[in-house]
Amino acid sequence: MGIVVQKYGGSSVATAEKYRRVARRIAWRKQQGYDLVVVVSAPGDMTDDLIERAKGITQRPSAREMDVLLSTGEQVSIALLAMALHELGVPAVSLTGPQAGFRTDDNHRAARIQHIDTARIKQELAEGKVVIVAGFQGLDDHGDITTLGRGGSDASAIALAAYLEAEACQIFTDVDGVYSADPRLVPTAGRLDEISYDEILELAAAGAQVMQLRSVELAKQYGVEFEVLSSLAPLPDEGGEERGTKVVAQLSPSNPRIVSGVAVDSKVAHITLVGLPDRPGVAFRVFKALGDARINLDMIVQSIGTANGGGPTADISFTCARDDLDLALEVCNSVLPEFPGARVLYDTDVAKVSIVGSGVASNYGVAAKMFEALAEKGINIELITGSEIKISCLVRASQAVEAVRAVHDKFQLGKLAPVMQ
Amino acid sequence: MGIVVQKYGGSSVATAEKYRRVARRIAWRKQQGYDLVVVVSAPGDMTDDLIERAKGITQRPSAREMDVLLSTGEQVSIALLAMALHELGVPAVSLTGPQAGFRTDDNHRAARIQHIDTARIKQELAEGKVVIVAGFQGLDDHGDITTLGRGGSDASAIALAAYLEAEACQIFTDVDGVYSADPRLVPTAGRLDEISYDEILELAAAGAQVMQLRSVELAKQYGVEFEVLSSLAPLPDEGGEERGTKVVAQLSPSNPRIVSGVAVDSKVAHITLVGLPDRPGVAFRVFKALGDARINLDMIVQSIGTANGGGPTADISFTCARDDLDLALEVCNSVLPEFPGARVLYDTDVAKVSIVGSGVASNYGVAAKMFEALAEKGINIELITGSEIKISCLVRASQAVEAVRAVHDKFQLGKLAPVMQ
Repeated sequence: MGIVVQKYGGSSVATAEKYRRVARRIAWRKQQGYDLVVVVSAPGDMTDDLIERAKGITQRPSAREMDVLLSTGEQVSIALLAMALHELGVPAVSLTGPQAGFRTDDNHRAARIQHIDTARIKQELAEGKVVIVAGFQGLDDHGDITTLGRGGSDASAIALAAYLEAEACQIFTDVDGVYSADPRLVPTAGRLDEISYDEILELAAAGAQVMQLRSVELAKQYGVEFEVLSSLAPLPDEGGEERGTKVVAQLSPSNPRIVSGVAVDSKVAHITLVGLPDRPGVAFRVFKALGDARINLDMIVQSIGTANGGGPTADISFTCARDDLDLALEVCNSVLPEFPGARVLYDTDVAKVSIVGSGVASNYGVAAKMFEALAEKGINIELITGSEIKISCLVRASQAVEAVRAVHDKFQLGKLAPVMQ
Repeated sequence: MGIVVQKYGGSSVATAEKYRRVARRIAWRKQQGYDLVVVVSAPGDMTDDLIERAKGITQRPSAREMDVLLSTGEQVSIALLAMALHELGVPAVSLTGPQAGFRTDDNHRAARIQHIDTARIKQELAEGKVVIVAGFQGLDDHGDITTLGRGGSDASAIALAAYLEAEACQIFTDVDGVYSADPRLVPTAGRLDEISYDEILELAAAGAQVMQLRSVELAKQYGVEFEVLSSLAPLPDEGGEERGTKVVAQLSPSNPRIVSGVAVDSKVAHITLVGLPDRPGVAFRVFKALGDARINLDMIVQSIGTANGGGPTADISFTCARDDLDLALEVCNSVLPEFPGARVLYDTDVAKVSIVGSGVASNYGVAAKMFEALAEKGINIELITGSEIKISCLVRASQAVEAVRAVHDKFQLGKLAPVMQ
């Protein structure tokens, strides 16, 4: 049988008891005859503790030294997990990121994996050992320790699965998969059996709290299919079943789904430039200035404006992250004097509701069905944008939860999969 | 000017404030024009915390994994100290033991340094940086992390000083040098300006709480002279003077000292085998059995025994660490049946008082002076042994402190050097 790569996040190893549980889960999989390579994050809140220590010394720590500091968290974790496996009588060896062969660029705190030299890992597997690898870290060409930034341990696992041509890649976290909506907002939300890279990327961009975008992009780039599972679920050696959400390139044909999920993003701001002259180059002038300020824009809509006494005018609307609002207004106000009569309006009392699904563009009436669901609840739509696999509507913030539930019900997403308890 | 190697122990970096103090001390030395290589231990009680984490998982941790775990303590420390130097505007770079080129054997938890590849350190020094090195750790031929065992950071500093041909090696700790006696027992004890390798080795063996034996042995082997200083003393940039004890191969001729220090060891046990047959091979039989049990013996004395009715007999007395007493008695009792009439006595209510000095053997009357001091106080001597530079007397435990003070006064050691406050 082949290699299985597993990854356990910090919440899975927050206590000694949790290390023991993770070790049992690994031991069970090993007993099924697989070679196991396990990526593990720093225990619980150790990373926060290390950051606090650095803050006691300086407010502007060097990125290189932060990497030296933070990489110790995963190193503690690999040693403890190896010990927990030894305690079960399972041969295991821990390897730091550098020892495991992770080579990265030298972009400290957000390094990219360039190559994995898997010789040491393969040698340890050949000796029958479970190989425990410190996620999130590597070595650059100067021989310096680097870290991969947020979600880095997922990236480590996915890259390892690619380089080792693993049979499976399992990402264990504190939820048991990807849901059709946030279960805290939509009680009928169901766990998806599978989801495509593009769908999960759009869901994350639409505000869903799923995986870090970068890890999914990496999986898509390497063509690594993986599964998101809960480390809190009953252990297989106690009869528990390992069920989660598979993240795949293409949904299986037996799964003819139009919409996979509904997401809401409440941390957005809506900006409208009213009364711009309706002539070529105006939109470019505005968006160039916003782009230079490194502001990410979403839901861009241009419409015919209400005449302001002069020639024909246009209104331009867009949304951005609420954190970027002040900067965006500053940029707009600096450009506006070039366009007499134009003015800036903004609104932070809004939320973006999106449906995401591989079948959105290829099926008639999907958009209409979404608008119908909102209309039935008397929810006004302020902006609409669409892509190949996503339709987003901007609504009043106060109606966001009602909107998500209405859309979720309309597409009968609750019937997708039973929620695992 | 040349290279100065400094070493700071865990108590010197127990808090953020202490890192800042250490950084100022380093910065001051660097301003004097030296190249600085600084070895640092794990912060405060971090090592104990890591050991606790391991204990939560297993009572029998693998030595290899303990090294992976424990080496993170120093790695945290080097990053924080580099940050503290940056905060002062001093260029600095941290290197783990492996990055600094420490190569060791694979004897995990007590590895020996085999070689230091100083290329990276020299490169960083050439770029004008202070190089902060994680003490206590290295890499073996398998590419695995090793630690050097107790006192390992001192060993790291001394080996670095040798390989870098440093102009000075300064070991900063929480005391300002080596004293003529333990100041907690002998209030008049004075700090020694200098002490020889052999004297400090004998003092440590005699029970003085000075440096780890291994580091001094390493210094002697490499011919590295070093200085023991306090990191708690006033900072040089505030007018403080760096005064400690120099540990040297030979005391300077201007320092014609007979006795350097007095030590007491209260953790000893006294064992006597009474009524052994006085014939060749008996002592060998006994001490071979004790040696096989890995018991270190001290103060071995053989005397003519009190006849036990048969032929001539001998008594053999020795001391060992009190922790080894049970095992030693077990060994003796297993051997005794071979010698009918012999029996074992033991006594734990004893203490060993020793004088150590390069002039002990070459000066008449030193031993007599020690015995005189004890006799004047009515202190009975139960065993006496001597070496080239040491004389030890076993006395009642209750009289140990009085004995140390009497001997210290008799040799006027209090006048050696003023105690630094």
